[in-house]
Formats: sequence, C-alpha cells, structure tokens
Amino acid sequence: MTAASDLSSRLRFVLVRTSHPGNIGSAARAIRTMGFTRMDLVSPHRYPDREVTAMAAGADDVLDGARVHAGLIDALAGTSMAFGLSARRREVNLPELTPREAAAQALAAAERGGQVALVFGNERTGLENEELARCHAMVRIPSVDDFSSLNLAQAVQVMAYELRVAMLGETMPAPPPLHDEPPADAAQMERFFEHIAQTLDDIDFHKGRSPTMIMLRLRKLFLRAHMDERELRMLHGILADAQRMAQLANEKK
Amino acid sequence: MTAASDLSSRLRFVLVRTSHPGNIGSAARAIRTMGFTRMDLVSPHRYPDREVTAMAAGADDVLDGARVHAGLIDALAGTSMAFGLSARRREVNLPELTPREAAAQALAAAERGGQVALVFGNERTGLENEELARCHAMVRIPSVDDFSSLNLAQAVQVMAYELRVAMLGETMPAPPPLHDEPPADAAQMERFFEHIAQTLDDIDFHKGRSPTMIMLRLRKLFLRAHMDERELRMLHGILADAQRMAQLANEKK
Repeated sequence: MTAASDLSSRLRFVLVRTSHPGNIGSAARAIRTMGFTRMDLVSPHRYPDREVTAMAAGADDVLDGARVHAGLIDALAGTSMAFGLSARRREVNLPELTPREAAAQALAAAERGGQVALVFGNERTGLENEELARCHAMVRIPSVDDFSSLNLAQAVQVMAYELRVAMLGETMPAPPPLHDEPPADAAQMERFFEHIAQTLDDIDFHKGRSPTMIMLRLRKLFLRAHMDERELRMLHGILADAQRMAQLANEKK
Repeated sequence: MTAASDLSSRLRFVLVRTSHPGNIGSAARAIRTMGFTRMDLVSPHRYPDREVTAMAAGADDVLDGARVHAGLIDALAGTSMAFGLSARRREVNLPELTPREAAAQALAAAERGGQVALVFGNERTGLENEELARCHAMVRIPSVDDFSSLNLAQAVQVMAYELRVAMLGETMPAPPPLHDEPPADAAQMERFFEHIAQTLDDIDFHKGRSPTMIMLRLRKLFLRAHMDERELRMLHGILADAQRMAQLANEKK
C-alpha cells in the first residue's frame, strides 16, 4: 500500500480564472486542512494578493507551492486523470460523478501511480466547455436545483473532504494495476489528439463537415479508456501508416 | 417514507457565539445550497450586519427565518438530538462520530419525527465543555492533526453536505447513463475488430510482424472503453477512409 503522503501529493487542485483572491486563500486553507498540498492556478484575476494570504489562515505551504499557469493544459501537465467540477447539469458529453464517486476514482488512479487533477472553474461562469473537454469526468456536488451556487472554496472543501475520507478509508490493499505500462499523461494525450486530427484531415474524413464534434467524441472516447503509453505508441503507429497511405494516394494523383 | 422537505425542516444548524458576521452569511449559503432552511444563532457578536447579507449570496429565506437566542438551551428547544462539532479531540465524555455517521444518525432521528440540531462553536474557541455536555455526540471532521482549523462555514458546509447525501441516498434515482446512445453489443464489437484487422493489413501496419499481439492490445483497449453505437459508427467511418486511401495508393502503384 502506498503511503498517504505519497498519495496526497499526487492530487492537485486546479483553480481556473478565479475572480476573488479571498477564494484562493480559502481554498488553500480547505486543501491544507484535509492533508493536501498542491494547488495550481490558471490565470487568476488577482494574484498574489494580500487577501489570498489573509484567507489562507496559515496554509502557507500550499500558497508557497502554488504554481500559476497561462492555460489549463499547462496546469494538467503530467496528470493522467482530471475531474471537472460543475454546479450545473451541462450539455457536455461527459460521465457525471458524485464527489464520492470521483474521490474513489481519483484515489484509485493515484494508487496506480498517476497524477490526478480536480479542476474548479470561475466563481460566476464555471468551466468553459472546452475546459471540461480536457477532463475525464464531470463532478456535480448535489446541491438543490433552486439554489445551486456553492461558493468556490466550499466546493473545494467538499471535494477535499471526500478525498480525505476516501484516503482514511483506504485499508484495503492497492487495486491491481490496470496497466503494466505507465499511464499516458495529459500532454501525451494532447499530442495524440493532434495526431488524430491531422490524420482525419489527411485521409479526407471530414468531407466538408466540421471536425469539432468528431474531435469531441474522439476525446471523450479515448480519455475514458485511460490508455497507457504503449497503447498510445501503437495508435500513433496506426495513424502514421494511414497518413503514409494518404500521402501515397495523393502523390500519385 | 417521509417527504424530503419535512425531513430537512427537522434539522437545524445552530451557530454559537459566532465572531464574524461573514461566517454567518457563508454558513447560511452553505445550508441553503444543501436544501436546508433553519439556522439558529446563539449570542452572535454582530448580528444583523450587512456582511451577513453579503456573504449569504441570496440565501435570504435562511436569514429571514434565523432565530437569535441568548443561550444554547433556548436554541435546542424542541430537539430530541444534538450533535456538537469539534475540531479538536476533546476531554469530554461523549461518543465521537464522523460527519457521515452523524448524518446517518441525524437522519434516522428525523425520520422518527424528532428535531435534530447540529451545533457549531465560536471560530476560535469552539464549543465550551458545558455546551458540548448538552449534545448527544461530538462530531469531528477528519482534518489533519497539524492543521485542523476548518473555517466555520466550511465545517457547516461539510456537515450539510453529508446530511444532503444521506437524504438523497434515501431517494436516489438511478444514475444517469454514461451514453445517450445504445451501448455497442458483443457482435458489433467483433465486426469492429474485424474491420480494424482488415484495415491494419490494408495500410501495411504489420510489416511482417504477427498481428496477434496488436489485435489483443486493441481489443483490450476498446473493450475497456465501453463504446456506444454512435462511437462505433464513427470509428468504422475512419477505418473506411484509411482503407480508401490504401486502395488509391495501391491502385496507382
């Protein structure tokens, strides 16, 4: 079984386009009380800020270690799994999990050696659809329909709490690994999606239709499959051969 | 079974000697998002206060209904059970419950027709021992030992969340399907694997190597993804275009 500190260090809380610095501080405090340390900030509106520090109430190690990124892709670097929190039911084609289900899945992925991200959007607008599209699943905290606006730090607290409870409940041996190879990380998956997109162009798959929906469906399918690096190499090889055929076909036109 | 609204009206959140009005507002919001309505305040330091309203973010019905009491005894009037939240392990002779255990017991008591209180102490000093002595059990949120100071509204959020999950567990609808399309059945998957195998031949992927291992890996990957019929049609389409390119390439040799 993996030590708790190892596991908790594989979980990161990613706050995207946070408006209020006080919420970053409160989130840091929530993260720290539940035994986690890593926070990543994507384009925070005001950071650093004295209000961040005031609301963190001493969770200085979380703040000191917080990394600031320009985009979500950078914040997900090295992760093999990402969960996007959403207050509303969304028109996104993603599995919807409860915080408890997400905590169990996140912990299982961390036990297998992966890095896992919990992603929280802007206070007012939440996550953009294209940000959710980088996630493997959506997490909805079961608020009431007529008043679903959890404060950002409250949402972080609920998720961190469920992860903590899941970790404390971890008395069972580690689950058998799904793979003997290392899991593909977010950057590798992005390169793979770019390769698919290019190949679909090369083999003239779209025939004038918009590639957007197809790419969303392919993302969803392959993110769901939680591929390892060897599987990814195999698929890259297949795509490369399809591209080679397309090139031969075109050269000889 | 009792209706959810009846049950939730039997649960009250009691905030004792709260220092910061913003915390009362945030607590009201947390209570409201989880479907509860009743808040009782014991000797709040500043109340009413504009900061309460600001942080409540529209949870006006909770604020409007909030009752202010001089002492905890008044706030517990009519209750048959009270749970005292405590951040620290205490020298009090009370059963110590997790939030989840407390939620289950609180719900069971409410189902039996009782009124139940969740009692939260002052931000800095918590509940006095004589206040805890009025409770039937102590609830400790499992924070880490070296940083156990949950913000008051965060503690309210965790407890309200656990109560909400416990209540939903009573009436939980079936989980939404992962797909809106019918899942692919075994025969459809076999036809898909035949199509992949044929395509790999056509695009000269194997280059003399045995196809067996590759096909096993592809089977494993795609079976794991639990695809639906629409996804399968999309992949068949991609394979067909790759085959078309291979045919063009070969025709022109």
